[in-house]
Amino acid sequence: MYLKELYENKEKLLNKKVIIHGWIRNHRPQKEFGFIDFSDGTCFKHIQIVYDNEIKNFNEISKLLVGSAIEVEGTLVESKGNQEVEISANKINVLGICPEDYPIQPKRHTKEFLRTNAYLRPRTNMFQAVFKIRSLAAQAIHRYFGDNGYIYVHTPIITASDCEGAGEMFQVTTLDLEKIKNSGKIDYTKDFFGKKAGLTVSGQLEGETYAMAFSKIYTFGPTFRAENSNTKTHMSEFWMIEPEIAFCDLNGLMDIEEDMLKYVINYCLENAKDELEFLDKFVEKGLIEKLKKVVNSKFSRVTHEEVITILKEAKCKWEFEPNYGEDIAKEHEKYITEYFNGPVFITNWPKDIKAFYMKQNSDGKTVAAVDLELPEVGELMGGSQREENYEKLIARMKELKMEPEDMYWYVNLRKYGTCVHSGFGLGFERLIMYLTGMENIRDVIPYYRTPGNCDF
Amino acid sequence: MYLKELYENKEKLLNKKVIIHGWIRNHRPQKEFGFIDFSDGTCFKHIQIVYDNEIKNFNEISKLLVGSAIEVEGTLVESKGNQEVEISANKINVLGICPEDYPIQPKRHTKEFLRTNAYLRPRTNMFQAVFKIRSLAAQAIHRYFGDNGYIYVHTPIITASDCEGAGEMFQVTTLDLEKIKNSGKIDYTKDFFGKKAGLTVSGQLEGETYAMAFSKIYTFGPTFRAENSNTKTHMSEFWMIEPEIAFCDLNGLMDIEEDMLKYVINYCLENAKDELEFLDKFVEKGLIEKLKKVVNSKFSRVTHEEVITILKEAKCKWEFEPNYGEDIAKEHEKYITEYFNGPVFITNWPKDIKAFYMKQNSDGKTVAAVDLELPEVGELMGGSQREENYEKLIARMKELKMEPEDMYWYVNLRKYGTCVHSGFGLGFERLIMYLTGMENIRDVIPYYRTPGNCDF
Repeated sequence: MYLKELYENKEKLLNKKVIIHGWIRNHRPQKEFGFIDFSDGTCFKHIQIVYDNEIKNFNEISKLLVGSAIEVEGTLVESKGNQEVEISANKINVLGICPEDYPIQPKRHTKEFLRTNAYLRPRTNMFQAVFKIRSLAAQAIHRYFGDNGYIYVHTPIITASDCEGAGEMFQVTTLDLEKIKNSGKIDYTKDFFGKKAGLTVSGQLEGETYAMAFSKIYTFGPTFRAENSNTKTHMSEFWMIEPEIAFCDLNGLMDIEEDMLKYVINYCLENAKDELEFLDKFVEKGLIEKLKKVVNSKFSRVTHEEVITILKEAKCKWEFEPNYGEDIAKEHEKYITEYFNGPVFITNWPKDIKAFYMKQNSDGKTVAAVDLELPEVGELMGGSQREENYEKLIARMKELKMEPEDMYWYVNLRKYGTCVHSGFGLGFERLIMYLTGMENIRDVIPYYRTPGNCDF
Repeated sequence: MYLKELYENKEKLLNKKVIIHGWIRNHRPQKEFGFIDFSDGTCFKHIQIVYDNEIKNFNEISKLLVGSAIEVEGTLVESKGNQEVEISANKINVLGICPEDYPIQPKRHTKEFLRTNAYLRPRTNMFQAVFKIRSLAAQAIHRYFGDNGYIYVHTPIITASDCEGAGEMFQVTTLDLEKIKNSGKIDYTKDFFGKKAGLTVSGQLEGETYAMAFSKIYTFGPTFRAENSNTKTHMSEFWMIEPEIAFCDLNGLMDIEEDMLKYVINYCLENAKDELEFLDKFVEKGLIEKLKKVVNSKFSRVTHEEVITILKEAKCKWEFEPNYGEDIAKEHEKYITEYFNGPVFITNWPKDIKAFYMKQNSDGKTVAAVDLELPEVGELMGGSQREENYEKLIARMKELKMEPEDMYWYVNLRKYGTCVHSGFGLGFERLIMYLTGMENIRDVIPYYRTPGNCDF
């Protein structure tokens, strides 16, 4: 039996025989008895195992170190002095011992130390909480979109189209680098795909092709950026969710973003009570309050122009002066979410700082883009209505020196029954940082990839 | 409103005004009225739009070609002559026209033609059915594992460990190939990760590290094989599900495989009735019967040795002679599932044809591996109990000329509280082929990657 089932049926199992398997998280052996803090990872709560010298291998057991795997047969009993249960053991079998040099000891380890032992860190309470919430959040996202009639689309990982993020793409090849003779240019007809290929930076464009068939779709897969940046919020490999919705304008898109985010947060609040309480206590004080507040707030909606006006009128000394027609800085994002006392959708951004596919507004200056800014963390989602007009899209691509023919399949969507449609992107790890309070993105993905790091 | 909601509420909406958006799948304009076969992709069923010359843009509408996007305002009415509903239009707005050269016409297209138009094929009935089922099957898998307490783990895509599938890995690099001067060896300290990196062929080994912390985990992500094979069942990029369960032996693993597969099939039978009926009619006659039979059957369990004995005793002329200690061929798989009249788990395979991490049986010759063979399609899942004994694992790796130090994090799992554990791999596209009856793996993934193909 796994510990989760035991706790779920604890009334029924009280004073009954139970058999469980798991690991010793802590051990206090005494002369004639001992206490084991036991967990199998299926729920955040551990259970106490009490044994005494009636068990036949008492000597062997009392010497077991933290990390050892055991099988316990015993009776589930009420714990003395509190409402909880514990197991009074009749029999303990050793499944796998653990030596003294085991890196994960029942004490506080630094996150840096745990990163170098990333394969063991899920055995700590902190990372049990983080990765349980990561799993729950993924479940919640699939449930939200599934229950609302969206089709889950697996867009390709290897791609030969590099229109977005050129220069920041990883190359994928089977050419033998040792044998390349650079007498001139590389002959990509000899590469695996017969042309130069790389790792996707976004599934959006392919996602749009499916939205034009199913109306409502979403992607949830890995994306890549070969950017040489070593910040707390960037990685070279991360997971993205990119919904795309036909017959949906910018306002409809904001409704969906807000609804989805609240659903995911609620799902975690309901299903990760113990984990969130732990993180609230040891990682981010007020975490649960913060999450509940977002769920209960109405997100504000304001244009980029209005934001700049507010920033200019603010009695603040800015490091970066806010300007119409320009992007906003971290300090501005912070001010704005404080100003509106909650999440803020900022719409209608200057077109020159946004992507080519965004719908051009009639003012000729802005596009129907929207960023969702959250208190403390800043931007969490970015989306837009897409330019559905064939001529306008082509004109914009040419302005940006892009070749429409290279993306005929994308621009053709505007030729074959085009319609208003919108979509957004959500960086999954940013969401997990927000949900857990973890401050470094390396601590919310099992094995992180950053410049110089590709361990495990 | 989307068509799915309309159908879900059709009793309530009867004789009421409705507004829907979608695409013309077929059009029969008459002199004074017209019929539009309309779909928005949110459900498999289309709806008929009836309009007459009372609508003000009658001339414009009657000229609309297949593929055009429209907005329809009208009354939901009972259709004459059958139980269904249709929409009597008051107003039709053109959202996006579609020209005559639109490749997707209401006729039968070959699958080869549709592959070259992969960005448009989800607009056909066949691919609406296939990709709806793909999405549902993914949902079912997440629900099955989520509801059963498994943690969803995102194992890394880019990896520097090439112990499995070496030589079949894609290389990932940011080195400028044009500038490589091969005066000797490539200096990988200058590459993005400071060492040679590639695309993962499996998330299992990393998955095991999480199973040793959470007991029950699964992965669901893309995997890659740079194999130069052009068959109907191989691709270079495909999605895999790899569950890993601590304190679970080979028998327990088979229970889980059988339970999960039945759950996924049932989920599709319940949620994709229309799609499966279509596929049963036009793609694989008897598809629904086949799926129902699997759900209602008890899977057989037989050892590899028993299988060879059965094959040797069979009155068949084999192309490949069955032999103890060797792999079995397609013709053998077929015979065995017919022999047992249903799905068969074949266990205890010769160790020399299986992977290093599989648990060595006490006979010294076999490992605790299991392949699930399904009637007609052959192997669908492959799994094993893992070698949990440190010394035995190291010995086997050395026999195979592998360096245990390169995988210290994997072998250490056997040092730090080892335990019996098992896992299996399920190729997602193989499952979708089975669920839809599609015979070419290129037709069950949105954009396929095979040697020489990396389009869209």
